[in-house]
Formats: sequence, structure tokens, C-alpha cells
Amino acid sequence: MAAMTKEEPTAPPVATREGEARSAVAEARKAGRSIAFVPTMGALHAGHTSLIEAADKGGAFVVVSIYVNPTQFGPMEDFNEYPRTLDADREASARAGADLIFAPAHDEMYPPGDQTRVRPGPLSEPMCGAFRPDHFEGVCTVVAKLFNIVHPDVAYFGQKDAQQAVVLRRMVRDLCMPIQIEVCPLVREEDGLAMSSRNAKLTAAQRKQALCLYKALCTARDRLMAGEQTIGGIIAAMRDTIMESGPAEIDYLSIVDPETLEPARKPAGLVMVAGAIRIGETRLIDNMLVETIRD
Amino acid sequence: MAAMTKEEPTAPPVATREGEARSAVAEARKAGRSIAFVPTMGALHAGHTSLIEAADKGGAFVVVSIYVNPTQFGPMEDFNEYPRTLDADREASARAGADLIFAPAHDEMYPPGDQTRVRPGPLSEPMCGAFRPDHFEGVCTVVAKLFNIVHPDVAYFGQKDAQQAVVLRRMVRDLCMPIQIEVCPLVREEDGLAMSSRNAKLTAAQRKQALCLYKALCTARDRLMAGEQTIGGIIAAMRDTIMESGPAEIDYLSIVDPETLEPARKPAGLVMVAGAIRIGETRLIDNMLVETIRD
Repeated sequence: MAAMTKEEPTAPPVATREGEARSAVAEARKAGRSIAFVPTMGALHAGHTSLIEAADKGGAFVVVSIYVNPTQFGPMEDFNEYPRTLDADREASARAGADLIFAPAHDEMYPPGDQTRVRPGPLSEPMCGAFRPDHFEGVCTVVAKLFNIVHPDVAYFGQKDAQQAVVLRRMVRDLCMPIQIEVCPLVREEDGLAMSSRNAKLTAAQRKQALCLYKALCTARDRLMAGEQTIGGIIAAMRDTIMESGPAEIDYLSIVDPETLEPARKPAGLVMVAGAIRIGETRLIDNMLVETIRD
Repeated sequence: MAAMTKEEPTAPPVATREGEARSAVAEARKAGRSIAFVPTMGALHAGHTSLIEAADKGGAFVVVSIYVNPTQFGPMEDFNEYPRTLDADREASARAGADLIFAPAHDEMYPPGDQTRVRPGPLSEPMCGAFRPDHFEGVCTVVAKLFNIVHPDVAYFGQKDAQQAVVLRRMVRDLCMPIQIEVCPLVREEDGLAMSSRNAKLTAAQRKQALCLYKALCTARDRLMAGEQTIGGIIAAMRDTIMESGPAEIDYLSIVDPETLEPARKPAGLVMVAGAIRIGETRLIDNMLVETIRD
């Protein structure tokens, strides 16, 4: 359902039960439409809506799921505080072209006695995985469940969660799921801050400070593109950029192969510069793909 | 394809690639047929063919997979020695009503870099799980892959592998797979030995001795049905039956709730008597459902 006019499109129906979602998808398939899927945790921003818009392009029936998945949060993390804004999300989804919102009740996703998990492998271990030990297992588990309900032809994820996209692409291949994974570009605020539902939790001062992560990535990008070869030196400069901004904790700053997520020993070809920091209670991640000179 | 006459039915085609299997299944679906699936490791015996026959009953398109799955064998187990008899299996499948055999090449099931696993929960821990630590993770992983290729409406498993059936039923529910799991009765040799592809590895003397497991289950059944309440006493009698038969190692002898697999403290209603023993290099399992008197 493309928003062809300036009129406000009708907000899509919200399915809360697995059976409702399955029926709506089956009906769309029967009508000859392919199924595109955008799984989200809600609190939609322009990053999410860019995914919905991309999904809406080829005329597919677009399903947006909204579910704050408990198993991808650690015990000390912000599951309870994660923003929940269903009404606004529904409107934003409508404007972006969603045909169905699937906002499952908790017991649809985790029925009584639930105990099976989809466990990713080594790709889930570095970077965010090193600081959020069960995070990607939670992500894989809930996405597998959602995929098994929606059965999409194609699913859209943001490059902002770069490691998530790599881990899920691997999951889909390993578990023989006939689903194409599309990864869309990261969307930034005007000043460069990566859009995130968690940005809403920053105070005005923290919001200002938060830009340091983007600046650190830009520093790395500029040095890499200028031909600098010393990864250690580049990461030290990124660290300085973060620490000069004010009180922040660095989880990691890395320059890696964007497919294997292994540290780039020497920049050659496409690399990913990525980082995670914490400002106050808020954890922020960001990354940038950089085309360096091949030998 | 039901074997309606005494003529030998044509052996079903064998797909070795994921794409071939998907196409054949898609074509059957297009023709309005539902899809029934019998996953096996080959070396088919009357237990397996009873599953194929059950699958063939409602007129479904019957897919039989034959794949000796390495991830469900422990490092010291008999993966390399497991019997492989594809030609005979193909004929037996044909006679039982299979429409397609899917005998995937190894790299179809475990592509290069494969690392994702489906991890079952507490239901996989007692009984066989206690002696084969990664076995059920391997089973869940390969069955999830196969389900994602075949997309059956219904899948058939044998009660012989009772814990497997319980774990897979849980997996299907937890991962929101729209697949019905049917569990068919255990099939025995004339003297009572549970049919198993591993029976072929027994020497004549071991084959004779192997009956002790069935006898131990019968002992338990008879005592339970006579109203005996002392689980410890019944299991001791089972143990005596095994040990009197000759040199054998007992992995476990248990009386459990057939759904939760928790030890029955006091027999009431339906219980499962189950055991695993090793005779020489060969591991044998067996079980029996017993309806005891409810309070």
C-alpha cells in the first residue's frame, strides 16, 4: 500500500495473535502478492520507516512486527524502560506503506513452557556479543519465530545493527530458511547521530555528547581513506575523540571485515568501522563502511 | 501414492539438492496436495515404513528424508559405522508409499561456515540427554533445517525415540512452526525386541541378550499394572533382569511422565517406562507406555 497522495493513509490493522497474522499473510499470498517483512521493537524512527518504505517498493504485502523481545535483553539491561509507542508506530507504519502490523501478545511468542532457542555461532561473539552475552541468541530466537509465522519472501534490517544483520543472514542460510535478507543503509540525524530508539533517553547534554561516536567513526574513515595503515593508531585516535567528549564508557571500537567481523589487520578493500559506548545509562552503537585502497 | 496392487511400485525420485526438493514439494502443493514428511537416517526397517504408511494414508504427498546427521552423534559414537543402505531404502520407501526421497548432500545441510544451532531446553536433559550431551541439539538443528526445506503440514516420528518426539513437539511449538507432529507406535520384532537400525550390529549372542531390555520393560509394566507403587523397587527389578542377561551397561532405567519426562514419584495415570543399555558397542533404547490406576 504505497502512500500515493498527501492524504493520510489508513493505519494498517494490528494482529496480536499468531493465527490472525497467518491468515492475513495467506490471503495476501493467495492474491498473488509476495510478502515483505520488517521486524522491529517499535518506537519507530526514520531508520525503521526507511525499511518499511524499501519493503513497500516492489508492491509486496508489507508486514511490520512490533515486539519488545525480552530474551535479547540482559538481566541488567533496559527491557522495562524500552520505549513503547504503539499508536504512533501504527501511524508511522501506515505512512511508510505497511499493510499489517503484527504486535504479538507475549504468550504468542513465548508460550508456557517455552525453552527452545536458536543459538548463533562465532559471528555472535565479538563486538556487541562480547558485552551482551545472550543478546544474539535472543535475536535469532525471536526472528526465527517471527519468520515461521510471517513466512516472508524478503526481510529488511538496518545496517545500524550491522552484527545482527550478519548473524541473521547466517541463521537464514544455516537453517535453510527460504528468505532473502535485505540490509538498508543506516539513517542519521542531521548532525550525524545514528538514529536509535534509545536516543530518546538521552538528556540534552548527553544528546550533544553522543555525537562523539559519529565523530570517532569519521576520524577513522578519514584516516583510512587517507591511506593510513596502522589500525592501532586509528583506534587510539577514535578513543581520544570519545574520551574528550565527556564521561563515557567504551564497550568496543573496532575495524573489522564486514562479513566475517574479524579484526582487519591491515585495511584493504571494504572494512567496517564500528563502536559501542555508554553515556550514562544509555548504550549507543554506530558503524560505517569504508572502502579502503586494495593492494 | 498408495501401493494399491501387488505390483512393485516405481521407486520414488531421489532429490539430493535443496532446490530439487523444494520444487517437487511446491508442485505437489500446487496440485492441491498436503505434504507429509518422514525424516529418517535411512537403514529403514518396519518401524520406519510404518511411519511412511501412516503418512501415505490421508493422500498427502509423502517426502522421506534420508540423511545420517553428524551433529547428533557424539565424538565417540558410531557416525562412521551407522548403516547406509540407500538402494534398499528407496525400494522400501516406494512400497510404503513415499512420493519423494530427499537424500541431501552434506553441504546442503551444513553449508561452509555453518554455525547456527537449535538448542532444546530442559526436556532434552534427562534420560538419553544425560548420556548424549549434544544429541538433541543435533536432532533439533537438522529437523529444523529439513522442516524449512520440506515445509510439511505434518511430520511423523516413532515412539521408539520417545524423548526425541517430546523435544521436537516442543521445538515446533516454541519456534512457531505450523507443523503437526504425529507420533506412531513403536514396532517390535516377533520376540519383542524394539526395531532399530542398530540391531544389525549385534552378534547372534548379543541379539539374544538384547531382549533383556524388552523383558525389563515388561517386568515394570506387569508390576505397575498389578498396582505396585514403589518406583525404586520396580527399577531394581528391571536392573536385575538386565544384569542377569549377561554383560551389559545400563545408561538409565526410568519411569517418567510421558509429557514432562519428569520421574514419576508415584505411578498415577499414564507413565512411560524407558531404558537405554549398551551391549558391546551397541546402544539400545526402548520404552513402553503404561496406564496405571489413577487415585
